[in-house]
Amino acid sequence: MTLLDDYLAEVRDHVDRTLDGLVPRSDVEPARLHEAIRWSLFPGGKRIRPVILYATGEVFGAARENLANTAAAIEMIHTFSLIHDDLPAMDNDDLRRGRAACHKQFGEATAILAGDVLQTLAFKAVADDLSLSAEMRVLLITLLADTSGTPLGMVAGQQLDLQAEGRTVTLSEIEIIHARKTGALISAAATSGAMIGGATIAQMDSIATYANMLGLLFQITDDILDVTQETETLGKTAGKDAAANKATYPGLLGLDGSRDAALKVYGEACDALAEIDENTGLLEAIAGRVLSRVQ
Amino acid sequence: MTLLDDYLAEVRDHVDRTLDGLVPRSDVEPARLHEAIRWSLFPGGKRIRPVILYATGEVFGAARENLANTAAAIEMIHTFSLIHDDLPAMDNDDLRRGRAACHKQFGEATAILAGDVLQTLAFKAVADDLSLSAEMRVLLITLLADTSGTPLGMVAGQQLDLQAEGRTVTLSEIEIIHARKTGALISAAATSGAMIGGATIAQMDSIATYANMLGLLFQITDDILDVTQETETLGKTAGKDAAANKATYPGLLGLDGSRDAALKVYGEACDALAEIDENTGLLEAIAGRVLSRVQ
Repeated sequence: MTLLDDYLAEVRDHVDRTLDGLVPRSDVEPARLHEAIRWSLFPGGKRIRPVILYATGEVFGAARENLANTAAAIEMIHTFSLIHDDLPAMDNDDLRRGRAACHKQFGEATAILAGDVLQTLAFKAVADDLSLSAEMRVLLITLLADTSGTPLGMVAGQQLDLQAEGRTVTLSEIEIIHARKTGALISAAATSGAMIGGATIAQMDSIATYANMLGLLFQITDDILDVTQETETLGKTAGKDAAANKATYPGLLGLDGSRDAALKVYGEACDALAEIDENTGLLEAIAGRVLSRVQ
Repeated sequence: MTLLDDYLAEVRDHVDRTLDGLVPRSDVEPARLHEAIRWSLFPGGKRIRPVILYATGEVFGAARENLANTAAAIEMIHTFSLIHDDLPAMDNDDLRRGRAACHKQFGEATAILAGDVLQTLAFKAVADDLSLSAEMRVLLITLLADTSGTPLGMVAGQQLDLQAEGRTVTLSEIEIIHARKTGALISAAATSGAMIGGATIAQMDSIATYANMLGLLFQITDDILDVTQETETLGKTAGKDAAANKATYPGLLGLDGSRDAALKVYGEACDALAEIDENTGLLEAIAGRVLSRVQ
């Protein structure tokens, strides 16, 4: 265990307890809906978006209790997108976070509704967060809506990704798709942490650059792992990008070229952090951990 | 044209212009997603939720510009629920508002995303509404989330409805399902209008009773029309409740018994309005118009 490992475990525990309090218990009717939500939320993945939010907030002195609901909201939005992405009409994936996808376990109709209502619960979590001023809450809700919605957010990225399947896509198109599909919400995590912590405009700019680079780093390393890892290790179906004929970094740059790209993006993330006159060691360590998945 | 007809046309026009401004244009990428949203939003149905919101707000002296975004948000949430309800995994309906359902026109994947992002845009519309205080906006967002979510809102009602298919359901179970599936959002429309207008607690109570009765009146009359009307007139598939073996008022009470129930519920809606010391003529006329669909 390193300092980072301790931190990751701490945040994961804090987020899980927050999520548990925000989602109706599975013995409340409609129980099947709440079971489906909890099936997809717990046990969670790496909780990387909450980790980024907490770490960024703490750089600027935010208390953990002021970060908890927003972090949980972003994790709920992320989970809603996973549930809907896995549906037969979308990526048609049976495996998620190491077990049956929501629609395999509870049926398609319940999975659609579970995803829908996770989005609702996410916005409610921020609107109800009495630890923050109403002004801060509406700013956070707008940020979450923009980064998870359209035309620049996650759902827009999913639509562009759908439209890109089966045709040749350039590197710049891939980057636009990824920036929306996964980058936007990662960026929202960092930005909202900085907002709650009261960062200056200049600090927010540096954090935004860091977050964009970190999002890109995730995508490149995910693409590499999709090629190099087994399904069992990955916890989701491996090799599905190639099977779906999706544009990926290894497909365009090869494995070595992709590893070089990851290293370059990591460097740019660190450069952005160097501009911030606070202790950003944790954020640098997070980027390093992501990079280390493929080095 | 009556005074009510003029009012309905005016509100519909105001809501449509507001919605048009809140949804990305269909030439903005991802264009297909925005086309799908607009396909389902325009031309709209009766816009009954916005009408109720405007009429309630105006009872308490709210300016129309303070009501517009919240009304549009509720219409977006309603439309998202229609898009997802029509999906093959849910009600599997090909016809909506007199033309092809979203998934028939744009495919299932895009329809899922269009519904998802309409919810996002709805919360954004309220969070961004600078005509209201931040305090009012977070209260409205919580209200919308509670009434469209779970365990007491629309999505919970859809889940209960799914679970009720194909088995015998009591009248009290039907009422619980309908109160969540359609009543909650209608109630949200009335309550948010009253909140924005600055109604007192006692007035809010009376409005809540009115709204609950109005929601029930809609359900009873919808159930009757599903039996008595042709698909062409209805603009959606007729007879589908019976085909799906769904519990309905005519199924339980017969057509005459259902018409009697509608009349009784209408009376209770008017009784609630009588407790409010303001001009509630418009709200009474709206209830009368709903009743008149089946008398």
